[in-house]
Amino acid sequence: MRVVVPFDADTPKTRLGNVFDAEERATFATLMLQDVLTSLETVGIEPEVLATGPVSVDVPVRIDERPLTKAVNSILESTDRSVAIVMADLPLATPNTFERLFETAGQIVLVPGIGGGTNAIIARHPEFRVDYHGLSIRDHRERAHALDIEPTEVDSARLSTDIDERGDLPEMLLRGEGRATDWLGDRFELVITDGRVDISRRSG
Amino acid sequence: MRVVVPFDADTPKTRLGNVFDAEERATFATLMLQDVLTSLETVGIEPEVLATGPVSVDVPVRIDERPLTKAVNSILESTDRSVAIVMADLPLATPNTFERLFETAGQIVLVPGIGGGTNAIIARHPEFRVDYHGLSIRDHRERAHALDIEPTEVDSARLSTDIDERGDLPEMLLRGEGRATDWLGDRFELVITDGRVDISRRSG
Repeated sequence: MRVVVPFDADTPKTRLGNVFDAEERATFATLMLQDVLTSLETVGIEPEVLATGPVSVDVPVRIDERPLTKAVNSILESTDRSVAIVMADLPLATPNTFERLFETAGQIVLVPGIGGGTNAIIARHPEFRVDYHGLSIRDHRERAHALDIEPTEVDSARLSTDIDERGDLPEMLLRGEGRATDWLGDRFELVITDGRVDISRRSG
Repeated sequence: MRVVVPFDADTPKTRLGNVFDAEERATFATLMLQDVLTSLETVGIEPEVLATGPVSVDVPVRIDERPLTKAVNSILESTDRSVAIVMADLPLATPNTFERLFETAGQIVLVPGIGGGTNAIIARHPEFRVDYHGLSIRDHRERAHALDIEPTEVDSARLSTDIDERGDLPEMLLRGEGRATDWLGDRFELVITDGRVDISRRSG
């Protein structure tokens, strides 16, 4: 199975602009990508990165400047092999998590992201195509149904928690590990504000 | 094993006050509780409710007006049997989810909630006590360690998604089922605002 990890090398994690500056965002996004790649490699997978531009990783990188949906579908169209698409912003995912994902049977396996996205897809059917626009989990379910397939969904908090905005960051400090979490924990700490968990930049 | 579902019968779901009026909050909270009880019963569990006041359910109700931590610890102190504490605001949990939870081995089993809470606990050690104040998942891990136990954590988005505030409600419409989700879907629909999913009250 080909395992593809898309990565926005140009303007990563813009919705974290109220927490990190541009350089921090780029560093943080790259560390999350590296954590995902390491966890995949730990369970014997040889992932490839699908990036909009050059990126510093030790695995093959395919550069495609087109929007995510087109770039991914171009891979799906080019092969009859099974393909998995795993998002790069899943720093809570561990090797065990990915083992569970790839052991999940089904022609189409979906992992919903919090907020309606699709954090991972395994397409074991050659005609499946993606559409990451809007509430993609709904579209992906419909596309599976259009192929007469009932998609299998994986119930994992670690895979469903993609890190997009400030409110997602506490989850890393609460139960993450790896380089991105260490980087975040060196700079930020958990605080409780009005009964809700948040992060605050460490002083000094 | 005793399976206890705590329920705030007096002021349920206050953080949903910007979405529902007081009567709707009470209805919605009760429907979520009933969904959890039904899913538990489907897998052969006979749950009991630990409530701050009278509540309309078909299972035994123990009324204890004290704060949650005291009321739960009073049960833990009264028995040497294994006890599970399952939150009432987990409408994404299905019978399969609960089957997975109760099949998880370990003297202390924890399910982190998004935001640092603890959505479910299985205590198979007679000396374990809870503390739901603040970032309870951290406290519960420490309390397990103090008993020389490495807690087992269950990785389930359905169990980790407790419904506390507006931002949690779209998850129900995206992947929930049951009475609380039906009730919500009759009154609200999904919308996308500034690239983020939200809910909006249906007109008419």
